[in-house]
Amino acid sequence: MSSKSFYALIAGVGPGTGRSVALRFAQKYPVVLLARRPESYESTLADVEKAGGKAIGVSADVADAASLKKAFETINEKLPGSQLAAAIYNVGSGGFARKPFLELTEKDLNASIDGSIRAFFHFAQAAIPQLLESVPNSHYPPTLILTGATASIKGSALFSTFAAGKWGQRAIHQSLAREFGPKGVHVAHAVIDGVIDIPRTKEWAANDGAEDGKISPDAIAEAYWHLHTQHRSAFTQEIDIRPYIEKW
Amino acid sequence: MSSKSFYALIAGVGPGTGRSVALRFAQKYPVVLLARRPESYESTLADVEKAGGKAIGVSADVADAASLKKAFETINEKLPGSQLAAAIYNVGSGGFARKPFLELTEKDLNASIDGSIRAFFHFAQAAIPQLLESVPNSHYPPTLILTGATASIKGSALFSTFAAGKWGQRAIHQSLAREFGPKGVHVAHAVIDGVIDIPRTKEWAANDGAEDGKISPDAIAEAYWHLHTQHRSAFTQEIDIRPYIEKW
Amino acid sequence: MSSKSFYALIAGVGPGTGRSVALRFAQKYPVVLLARRPESYESTLADVEKAGGKAIGVSADVADAASLKKAFETINEKLPGSQLAAAIYNVGSGGFARKPFLELTEKDLNASIDGSIRAFFHFAQAAIPQLLESVPNSHYPPTLILTGATASIKGSALFSTFAAGKWGQRAIHQSLAREFGPKGVHVAHAVIDGVIDIPRTKEWAANDGAEDGKISPDAIAEAYWHLHTQHRSAFTQEIDIRPYIEKW
Amino acid sequence: MSSKSFYALIAGVGPGTGRSVALRFAQKYPVVLLARRPESYESTLADVEKAGGKAIGVSADVADAASLKKAFETINEKLPGSQLAAAIYNVGSGGFARKPFLELTEKDLNASIDGSIRAFFHFAQAAIPQLLESVPNSHYPPTLILTGATASIKGSALFSTFAAGKWGQRAIHQSLAREFGPKGVHVAHAVIDGVIDIPRTKEWAANDGAEDGKISPDAIAEAYWHLHTQHRSAFTQEIDIRPYIEKW
Repeated sequence: MSSKSFYALIAGVGPGTGRSVALRFAQKYPVVLLARRPESYESTLADVEKAGGKAIGVSADVADAASLKKAFETINEKLPGSQLAAAIYNVGSGGFARKPFLELTEKDLNASIDGSIRAFFHFAQAAIPQLLESVPNSHYPPTLILTGATASIKGSALFSTFAAGKWGQRAIHQSLAREFGPKGVHVAHAVIDGVIDIPRTKEWAANDGAEDGKISPDAIAEAYWHLHTQHRSAFTQEIDIRPYIEKW
Repeated sequence: MSSKSFYALIAGVGPGTGRSVALRFAQKYPVVLLARRPESYESTLADVEKAGGKAIGVSADVADAASLKKAFETINEKLPGSQLAAAIYNVGSGGFARKPFLELTEKDLNASIDGSIRAFFHFAQAAIPQLLESVPNSHYPPTLILTGATASIKGSALFSTFAAGKWGQRAIHQSLAREFGPKGVHVAHAVIDGVIDIPRTKEWAANDGAEDGKISPDAIAEAYWHLHTQHRSAFTQEIDIRPYIEKW
Repeated sequence: MSSKSFYALIAGVGPGTGRSVALRFAQKYPVVLLARRPESYESTLADVEKAGGKAIGVSADVADAASLKKAFETINEKLPGSQLAAAIYNVGSGGFARKPFLELTEKDLNASIDGSIRAFFHFAQAAIPQLLESVPNSHYPPTLILTGATASIKGSALFSTFAAGKWGQRAIHQSLAREFGPKGVHVAHAVIDGVIDIPRTKEWAANDGAEDGKISPDAIAEAYWHLHTQHRSAFTQEIDIRPYIEKW
Repeated sequence: MSSKSFYALIAGVGPGTGRSVALRFAQKYPVVLLARRPESYESTLADVEKAGGKAIGVSADVADAASLKKAFETINEKLPGSQLAAAIYNVGSGGFARKPFLELTEKDLNASIDGSIRAFFHFAQAAIPQLLESVPNSHYPPTLILTGATASIKGSALFSTFAAGKWGQRAIHQSLAREFGPKGVHVAHAVIDGVIDIPRTKEWAANDGAEDGKISPDAIAEAYWHLHTQHRSAFTQEIDIRPYIEKW
């Protein structure tokens, strides 16, 4: 039951939520950072190591089953005997589009479907067998966490294709929670209902520029850690996270 | 404002809900029956004509933008000067699958995505411009109705890909309702929460075989007609429909 | 099965939705108008009769079991042998309050509890036995319809006590739908999400004064009639109703 | 900003969730245990002290504004200068009833209304001014947590009055979250969807007697502590908590 032999896997590790999640989980586990290109995970890798944690970067395309298979082989080589404690799917949607419906193209639709539904489908198919294997040994119930958004629960005007991808992703998540919960895997979804405070959103004036009007990615990471450590008699399947001052 | 110059379009016209909807709307409008192959609409065509209505069958692939474009050209030739009063999207999902998640293939996922999300996306992109054109002249607000299912609102275990398609479809619908309602188009969704009483389900013992334990497709058609005739100050965006005896 | 021996009962019959519902149901049934004071039902009574329908006014306090019991005795005297086809609960909430939470008093809370929860509880306890008796004979499934509001599904800031009453009422409704649906009684709830166009709201500028920006009470009545006439294999439990232009 | 001058208040402190919450919050704050009779809090008081924490018992009727006012005076005497960091409303509903609707009495209805809606209303009116005062000084955002149940979100057959109280309570909670969140108070609701593993439920065979098939009250307490410590840029307004094996 030693925690030494477990690792956490994070897909989507740019300088925002993914980085914070990596730093948080690295307090307990070696973390594996998954991204298509090394540029995407290198700075987080360095941050984790600077903080005294252990991190490994693996290049893979989460939307591609074969690429994911190879990624897990790489992980097994680099962390031999280590088991998957938590898989966090935090991939920023390539499918974001804010457009009148009649201006959307099939390309917009595919970007959302591929980025949100297909990629999560493949990631979950690759991660769940590993999580199931960890059930008998892991200290905390093996966990699959999906980062969602306002568009995961609301189909706003001008967001039709983006919402389609996010809703589809959440549908899969909910189905997985019902199928794998009873097998000991904790499947949880976080509805991030607000602007996250990351370099990319620095200039955005969320909530009229109010202090703490954007969501701290460290706070999201803290919530994910809490989800991971929940006792199996008390799983939370979905949480909402929003600034105190957000309208909802 | 004469109703003579309007027609209703129904996609998905096999011997079930589509047929009942065609018969109901044919009491007021010529109905255009859309299906990939003539075999799918021929019997409904005959039934509408036997009932004294006017029906036209058009072969088209609703998941293909070019095919839909051609279908509307055909309609304009066959019903010159006629405008679209109502478009009913009732396409049976090719994406149905009831399987453990780890046994699902990318083919299962694509069947649901293509059948539920992509096809409705293209159908809506083709139909909405026509519906918008009808706004100033039509007696009832031009209407786009989408047939949904229990899986449109619930991600049950073993239904992950199917639910992903249905949720995605509903997300698009909700976004369209918010974008086009204010422009005068009524976009409505029906959650059909039970087994429909059609030839294909004859042997199914829904609700322990109770009388009226399966949903009458004529009753669904009546509800759709009500939705179509609602005043624009009183649009219903979503209804649930289930047998009196259904557990929910 | 003759419709001559059935009547509809409407509680809340001022010059708005109640009046429209009375007029709509009076096209088929004698209607009984329930109000605390005759002044509340007299003008609707006259309108129904002018339209060629039959209406009876009965004074009763819907929040008081004894008063309701007496009302049903009066009805049985005035309409001997007649059975209840539909009961519409449309009582305007005495419990409306828009106030900061810390300024609300127990009186505000009680007004909402008594007006929304207690009164509907008693009305339902009085009406349901009558509706159950009608099941074997009535042409349409006996129906109990509850008029709800935006506050029935959303707890907005400054509406805490009002929402508590409306949510509580909807909880009872949902429980009744599950208990009495299988017994053949159709229990339905309408979420009226907008300003109704009635004398009292004449000066309100809903939706920036847009044409048809307020809900036509006749359109609500039409929706209720549709609910009442639904086949028991296809009950709708809840509909939303809002102007095409309403934000939601 | 020293935590020494803050306390946590827990209403509903029998040998279940309340006890666990008291023990968890006592790791950081002195805890005040509120109950109608000293017998209800005495064993928890002893447990907290045994664990090295500080606890104070105060007798009060949470459904009575005057009694609550007096309770806060007592608290101020016993903990002079101390401010309210967190108020947890965990009062077991006196309003539980599982009965056919037509067998329910006004007494059943009142028990649910008084126990769930009225009592939480008064508790919140007494606690919120204290929480607002703590906003500028407290380390964690001052927090009001409400313990809910399955019946808070579902009106099941035979639970009409119980659900009415729970829904009403949740409506107030949601309204408070929207009003006081922007003022810095974290208002959160937990939907406890399962049987809690406490002395009273020892003989209940939840989830077919599966191991960990009942919710650990300590795990609930851990979730509440996480809610309390959330950064104000990342408030969770509602969580669900259920055993891994629960059907939902």
